[in-house]
Amino acid sequence: MHIREMLAEADRTGNPSFSFEYFPPKTAQGVQNLYDRMERMNHFGPKFIDITWGAGGRIAELTCEMVVQAQTYLGLETCMHLTCTDMGEEKVNDALRKAYKAGCTNILALRGDPPRETEKWQATEGGFHYARDLVAHIRKIYANHFDIGVAGYPEGCDDNKDEDLLLDHLKEKVDMGATFIVTQMFYDVDNFIRWVGKVRDRGITIPILPGIMPIATYGSFLRRANHMNCKVPDAWMTALEPIKNDDVAVREIGKTLVAEMCRKILAAGVRHLHFYTMNLAQATRMVLEELDWMPSPDRPLKQALPWKQSLGLGRREEDVRPIFWRNRNKSYVLRTQDWDEFPNGRWGDSRSPAFGELDAYGIGLTGTNEQNRKKWGEPQSVKDIAHLFIRFLNKDIEYLPWSEAPLASEAELIKDDLIDLNQRGLITINSQPSVNGVKSNHPVHGWGPPNGYVYQKAYLELLVSPEIFPEIQRRIENHPDLTYHAVTKSGNLHTNAPSEGPNAVTWGVFPGKEIVQPTIVESISFLAWKDEAFRLGVDWARCYEASTPSRLVIQKMMDTWYLVNIVNNDFHSPRTIFEVLGDLKAADLDKVPKLKIEGAANGVLHSTNGIEASTVPR
Amino acid sequence: MHIREMLAEADRTGNPSFSFEYFPPKTAQGVQNLYDRMERMNHFGPKFIDITWGAGGRIAELTCEMVVQAQTYLGLETCMHLTCTDMGEEKVNDALRKAYKAGCTNILALRGDPPRETEKWQATEGGFHYARDLVAHIRKIYANHFDIGVAGYPEGCDDNKDEDLLLDHLKEKVDMGATFIVTQMFYDVDNFIRWVGKVRDRGITIPILPGIMPIATYGSFLRRANHMNCKVPDAWMTALEPIKNDDVAVREIGKTLVAEMCRKILAAGVRHLHFYTMNLAQATRMVLEELDWMPSPDRPLKQALPWKQSLGLGRREEDVRPIFWRNRNKSYVLRTQDWDEFPNGRWGDSRSPAFGELDAYGIGLTGTNEQNRKKWGEPQSVKDIAHLFIRFLNKDIEYLPWSEAPLASEAELIKDDLIDLNQRGLITINSQPSVNGVKSNHPVHGWGPPNGYVYQKAYLELLVSPEIFPEIQRRIENHPDLTYHAVTKSGNLHTNAPSEGPNAVTWGVFPGKEIVQPTIVESISFLAWKDEAFRLGVDWARCYEASTPSRLVIQKMMDTWYLVNIVNNDFHSPRTIFEVLGDLKAADLDKVPKLKIEGAANGVLHSTNGIEASTVPR
Repeated sequence: MHIREMLAEADRTGNPSFSFEYFPPKTAQGVQNLYDRMERMNHFGPKFIDITWGAGGRIAELTCEMVVQAQTYLGLETCMHLTCTDMGEEKVNDALRKAYKAGCTNILALRGDPPRETEKWQATEGGFHYARDLVAHIRKIYANHFDIGVAGYPEGCDDNKDEDLLLDHLKEKVDMGATFIVTQMFYDVDNFIRWVGKVRDRGITIPILPGIMPIATYGSFLRRANHMNCKVPDAWMTALEPIKNDDVAVREIGKTLVAEMCRKILAAGVRHLHFYTMNLAQATRMVLEELDWMPSPDRPLKQALPWKQSLGLGRREEDVRPIFWRNRNKSYVLRTQDWDEFPNGRWGDSRSPAFGELDAYGIGLTGTNEQNRKKWGEPQSVKDIAHLFIRFLNKDIEYLPWSEAPLASEAELIKDDLIDLNQRGLITINSQPSVNGVKSNHPVHGWGPPNGYVYQKAYLELLVSPEIFPEIQRRIENHPDLTYHAVTKSGNLHTNAPSEGPNAVTWGVFPGKEIVQPTIVESISFLAWKDEAFRLGVDWARCYEASTPSRLVIQKMMDTWYLVNIVNNDFHSPRTIFEVLGDLKAADLDKVPKLKIEGAANGVLHSTNGIEASTVPR
Repeated sequence: MHIREMLAEADRTGNPSFSFEYFPPKTAQGVQNLYDRMERMNHFGPKFIDITWGAGGRIAELTCEMVVQAQTYLGLETCMHLTCTDMGEEKVNDALRKAYKAGCTNILALRGDPPRETEKWQATEGGFHYARDLVAHIRKIYANHFDIGVAGYPEGCDDNKDEDLLLDHLKEKVDMGATFIVTQMFYDVDNFIRWVGKVRDRGITIPILPGIMPIATYGSFLRRANHMNCKVPDAWMTALEPIKNDDVAVREIGKTLVAEMCRKILAAGVRHLHFYTMNLAQATRMVLEELDWMPSPDRPLKQALPWKQSLGLGRREEDVRPIFWRNRNKSYVLRTQDWDEFPNGRWGDSRSPAFGELDAYGIGLTGTNEQNRKKWGEPQSVKDIAHLFIRFLNKDIEYLPWSEAPLASEAELIKDDLIDLNQRGLITINSQPSVNGVKSNHPVHGWGPPNGYVYQKAYLELLVSPEIFPEIQRRIENHPDLTYHAVTKSGNLHTNAPSEGPNAVTWGVFPGKEIVQPTIVESISFLAWKDEAFRLGVDWARCYEASTPSRLVIQKMMDTWYLVNIVNNDFHSPRTIFEVLGDLKAADLDKVPKLKIEGAANGVLHSTNGIEASTVPR
């Protein structure tokens, strides 16, 4: 979506609107942490995010990677920065192609800073001299595919203080096809308002997005302000100077000052603020809280569907997915990235090729063995594993091998039942409670446009030990409302579903629309998920040495247990599945497996990292 | 669907199953009456119907026409009879092609009676000698497209009493590819059971459908029995002879005898009965009632969708339609007959060409002017027209120009509100009450498979006079839950729908399935319906002489009123539409229009049948 459309919507509704800017971190761990943070900060409700351009080889690559991550996997509408520094036409075209392929539709075209070693900016040979050339180039190649933003300098530019000359440049950039302006950071609102007046006097009518940098620490605040030659009002210094060594106090006072500044800008008729987050969440969150702009139960974040949509190329229309990947969003996007078209309106033959193979995409457990052992400890028995799942349900831990996301808030409704199941050795991988028509703006279950109603069939996915599976199967098949699929690692699907077709388990009824049914259960995708689910377990087992009880107990579950999903088709009865599973209990919950030596040929004896299994009496 | 599949289903469920046989009537009026009767008798719940072959030119054509009507427009699974009498190969192929194109998948292949003028049966030159040749021919051309039935003679054939020889023939027909047997009528059940034993002894395993003729009058009963050389048990004669002149008593006793016979057949393990209806409903209905096989609120007729599906070629998968044609089923099928594929799962781009033009298909008001004047009287004012609609709502009359079907039973829920609207000159063309999730086997609103829930958004379509339309429009647009479309005869659509896309107004949630949404409202099909709706009114106006008040008042409505549809998207609030229309009232309800003479050029002065308008003072 083009930024100018988002701005037009903010203008129309009069609601506050804002965006976040991030830059490529220096380390791989830093990148991973930033992705997590971007996802969390998305819950603050930014309209879009910016990724700055990392001038120079690897760091430029990283900008492109981050755009893919944000746009395709996190589903964040992204604006990619692009500079002339160090960039020949070919490199620019390459970056634009990558942005295009990622589904990105917004570029901020900049001249950029001079490279570190030089004092004065110089164009690369065969490259672009000015941002206006870059704007013209993008328009020439991509016509209107990209919305193009350019920088504005209310307090002058690093190497140019001539306001009128800078306004000439701005006019040229706009004339070349720019459609919005993002300003450098500033704290002097009066000057900004004055400057906007001058911009408008030049006949420039496109939106201006003021750049705001929240205050994290006194040191960083002053450093950035100096670096950007940005004037700090005296009153700010008077307020901050005396407490400069108290970070907490600085953030508190800082948020008040920045929020005050934001209010003043809004009062001048500007609707959208652009926050320079410096890749940090806290200071920005505090400003948003102070402004009372954070989503809340009364004013929940609007979500078009119950799951986060990918904004990758060709995926914007996608609105149906199997429920199985609910907590493995990135893996789902990866395994379906070769599809020519995505289910839209209903699941069906629109899935062109099959799901991607696990190995082809390197899908599996993330993190090193050591990290994972630290996260999940060293379970010795089914009971220990169940305990881990119970800790997840109690929000003591954030992730499980099968959940890349913390527990959804709706799970509160069935938390006690889920804990009860795990205590009995029925290991719950995924679930959703039934919802019999609540308003689409419901703080927990709501999604989609206003004035609608949303529904869910209760869903439960669990690992079931083989000795109790036949009884579970019998009970489900005797119940008129339950449908199930069950499968072991080696295949062999059991099901009582009336057809191979999909079962809609989440749907919504909205004014003037067909029924939207974004989540389904069906057998072919369950089989694709089965491979992944067992693979994740096997990967987890392999985090432990070959002969350890942890390895053995997890590996045995993967080798012999059933992966079972159950749908209660009567969404009027919230507890049926739990009632049917009633008193069932897996055997030998406490049993700590010991290695049996069958002979030298037994592969289990040799762990992959060469440590011999300890010899255990038979 | 093949008859053998239906029989297999009856075997599996153990539910009684039956079929009706009809023959082509001699007059056009007879044909029309029979169509109406077939539709009514379909509510008795037959699995399929037979249309006998009318040997000889026009009457053979009529059989094919009736198959199209039953299969395509009435949505009845049909078995077409086909005989060798008078039929060369070309004629046979032509009939088969017509059956195929109608969507028919079942043929009863017969030798047929000798033509009237000859005593003994003779093959047509280049034709078929025996039913077995016909069976072989159909299999050769159509492989397994058609299920093929053949006749069985438990009491011998007209020109052949040799049971063993007839069984030889039967075996030959089965060997050629017949898959079910329908017997001639009989009343001697013991003999039938004995005969079935002999059939089975010959190694014939395909299903046998006993032919049962209910008793309408003593005369017809005896005439048919004699004609078919069918033995009547003595006890039947003893019971019927004394009351033979009392038709009512004959039917009463007859139904007991025939029901008794049916029970005996079922007790012998036969699951399906084939009734020779003689194109009459009453005697068959009485037998079904005696057997307690008629659908009832406790045991409603299963309906896959809220509307009757067409079983025409390529239409079986169709499961979405606009609500506008709800009471004009045949016209909808006609106007969409050129579509390459039909909406399935959701409305959308699957509609290949546009809706058929009215004139191309001859869609319009049926019946002669005289018949229509008789049906609907001579309304003088809007109030009189409204009164007609109120009579329809009260079931005093069965049809309206816009309704080919009597009022649906669900309209009872909103009848008082509809009557109130008509009393105020808001003429209600079509409607459905809101349904907030009732079980799919609900006697009034239910449809689709068991254990589901069905829903409806309240819908109202009405004719609105131009002076109150702006106020209606204002009220609807101020209401968050209402969407509408409004249009006059000349075009010019008004709407507040959020998009051009469809609004699902009927949907169902079923175990193991995606949401089924069989009825929608959307603008393009509303415009196609608009042409038809105004045309029906114009046709009605033209049933009256040019200068009469009836012609003038209806014509004026068509020329100046709005056709408006309103959907209440909040299906939790059943009365919103009526509340919003509250106190509105059309002006001049009582006004009887008088012809104004504008000058000789005024076309209204000259009615199409040449009667001069009376001169009225200006």
